[in-house]
Amino acid sequence: MYTVSNALKAVLDHVPIPGSERVPLVESLGRVLLESIVVPEDVPAFSKATMDGFAISADDVAGIGGYVPPSGLLRLRVVDSIVAGRISSRRLNSQEAMQIMTGAPIPQNCACVVPVERVQVDVPDPEWVGVPVSQMSSGLNILTAGAIARRGEVLLKGGIHLRPAQIGAMAELGIVDVLVSRRPTVSIVSTGSELVPSGASPGPGQIRNSIQPMLTAQSLTAGALPQVLGICDDDPKHLRLKILEGLQADVLVMTGGVSVGIRDLVPEQLLLAGVKRVFHGVWMKPGKPVWFGVFRSDSHTCLVFGLPGNPVSSLACFELFVRPALGRFLGLADPVPCTAVLSQRCQVRGDRPVYQPVVLSGGNGTLEAQPVSWTNSADLLAMVTANGFACLEPEHGAYDEGDAVEVLPWGIGNW
Amino acid sequence: MYTVSNALKAVLDHVPIPGSERVPLVESLGRVLLESIVVPEDVPAFSKATMDGFAISADDVAGIGGYVPPSGLLRLRVVDSIVAGRISSRRLNSQEAMQIMTGAPIPQNCACVVPVERVQVDVPDPEWVGVPVSQMSSGLNILTAGAIARRGEVLLKGGIHLRPAQIGAMAELGIVDVLVSRRPTVSIVSTGSELVPSGASPGPGQIRNSIQPMLTAQSLTAGALPQVLGICDDDPKHLRLKILEGLQADVLVMTGGVSVGIRDLVPEQLLLAGVKRVFHGVWMKPGKPVWFGVFRSDSHTCLVFGLPGNPVSSLACFELFVRPALGRFLGLADPVPCTAVLSQRCQVRGDRPVYQPVVLSGGNGTLEAQPVSWTNSADLLAMVTANGFACLEPEHGAYDEGDAVEVLPWGIGNW
Repeated sequence: MYTVSNALKAVLDHVPIPGSERVPLVESLGRVLLESIVVPEDVPAFSKATMDGFAISADDVAGIGGYVPPSGLLRLRVVDSIVAGRISSRRLNSQEAMQIMTGAPIPQNCACVVPVERVQVDVPDPEWVGVPVSQMSSGLNILTAGAIARRGEVLLKGGIHLRPAQIGAMAELGIVDVLVSRRPTVSIVSTGSELVPSGASPGPGQIRNSIQPMLTAQSLTAGALPQVLGICDDDPKHLRLKILEGLQADVLVMTGGVSVGIRDLVPEQLLLAGVKRVFHGVWMKPGKPVWFGVFRSDSHTCLVFGLPGNPVSSLACFELFVRPALGRFLGLADPVPCTAVLSQRCQVRGDRPVYQPVVLSGGNGTLEAQPVSWTNSADLLAMVTANGFACLEPEHGAYDEGDAVEVLPWGIGNW
Repeated sequence: MYTVSNALKAVLDHVPIPGSERVPLVESLGRVLLESIVVPEDVPAFSKATMDGFAISADDVAGIGGYVPPSGLLRLRVVDSIVAGRISSRRLNSQEAMQIMTGAPIPQNCACVVPVERVQVDVPDPEWVGVPVSQMSSGLNILTAGAIARRGEVLLKGGIHLRPAQIGAMAELGIVDVLVSRRPTVSIVSTGSELVPSGASPGPGQIRNSIQPMLTAQSLTAGALPQVLGICDDDPKHLRLKILEGLQADVLVMTGGVSVGIRDLVPEQLLLAGVKRVFHGVWMKPGKPVWFGVFRSDSHTCLVFGLPGNPVSSLACFELFVRPALGRFLGLADPVPCTAVLSQRCQVRGDRPVYQPVVLSGGNGTLEAQPVSWTNSADLLAMVTANGFACLEPEHGAYDEGDAVEVLPWGIGNW
């Protein structure tokens, strides 16, 4: 039987190359970038003041141009005032200053900007200012053209979720659209004659279909477009139709009917529909009966997952196998293992690795995993506080508080 | 001048009570729950098998009913087969068994389920099975009604983002709609005569409006509904109109024009429009000129933020003040301080607390903060790798690798 890591590798090996589309920058939040973003021009494009103050000429900063009184104040004539968005038509000469605002382009022959609060304005005659020579230092309070980035530098590489600061940075560079991956479609079929829609009242022996709303939400948080195909009876004809419909999507997720019971018809019907089985069963708890296969037609590939019908099992199988597959489909880097510290003792029952629901928190400089107690694989209610799994190995024996464990945070949104 | 924590407290004190609306459960992903969810019925509603196998009567489990051969196998007659969704019409008697599937309701007088792989089926006469007495133990492989949750228990309390497992759990309970907070509207006005839309080519001395797409994306990740009001010249009449328009929203965010330059007209125009100033200036770097006030009319409150026009300053002010305000508006708990460990030495320049952009990562059991080098508050391009701020205090002096620092992770999506 496959281990979790073998099974994950087998899944990822079958994911097709991401499709792409070009979207307006303002609609790219949370999408996965598929191109390199190259700086098209120097940033800033022109040298500018970083403070409100007075522009001083290179001549005066170099000490050329004359007598400095014992006060240390150089008396300069204010010849212009430059606000952001305006360029002074004049060259700045010795014994002159120009008032300048933050962000405004510095005039020609300007070597530094002295902040307004350091300058003495001549009250009877505001055309003159007294500027301390001690404050004049070449380059001070000037952001030179190209100081932030040079034309041709790579700002962003593909394979990342686009976040607000990145969108802002691209807007600054004048980028109006970006190449991102196409969002995969995920068909979701819940099988089981005992299921009723979650809004309905279950009759005797029936249960509500809680897995479908959960998988729909999980698919959304993974950046996919879910397509809900409803409930399917444990009936070969009905299954066949739903499977044909579901195979049109990029990913088909079926729940229930993958174990070894007399009504577990899903694997057989998938094979009959032309889906090639890659594995059936993974050495893990919960989720052992999970099934995975691939359907290929001339122009289309569909990854097919048969998840166990227990809610916790299907939640675990989605996070372990379906989410990474969707991530690779979107062009993201594959997930890397992550370690946390157990906040309490923990037993492993049985001989399979246990994916123990935990609350992950990072408050005090360490990443902590607090196990959540759960009754069994049907106990979805225990999962409402959890936000990840810790992988507990049976060979390890009992776990102590403070032991390091590998953890898998559940997907928390796509940006 | 206000400290960051005083300023944040002042902002939060002015946030109105969250508005609410009822939405279908399937549309509630990422929304903030505003009610307690109470378990309406025992879960599971009926006692059920947790394995495929054979249901054994309480009489046989209690050892009543006769002779056990030396093989240890009790020979039982199979009188029914129960699949999930069906109820057996019969009572299970001594010396009888019923085939039962995972999830199916156990019959009357059943005390345990013995897994199919432990049972010997009588090949010539499959109406009889041999069940090891050693496998019969009361309660084994049965999930009792109410074992997961009892009617009246509180499953979820308000004030949390709804995530997939929670949606699944509510679906299981038959909940079809939930009370969530109303998403606040955020008007965004960029002021500055030097600005051109980010898609346009800047003329001499002009710059692209990169802040607006960034703040739009930040607002979305905070769960708000952004309303882009475009660029506004540094002109009192134009400002007045934009402010009147912006005050219709729950939050008005203006950028630029809040410093002490000759074109910094925003605070005056806000006061003229009837906005009551709460503070102007916070002892921090970047973002010192930030302005905050409140507008109240008969039926409406608008929180008004004037953010500095430098991209990094406005990013910081959004994360420090606007995002927590939106969080409280949505009914979330206020952010709690979070600590990480510096991955390299770090200098604090100047006398104000510095909000240093960092890359936060939690790979190896510790939460690490890697400082990002940035040129100045205009350097949005340096922010593309960062995902949080570390707060560096000038009194601390130089920071060493391994020092603990308070960090503020940037918003990473609303579920």
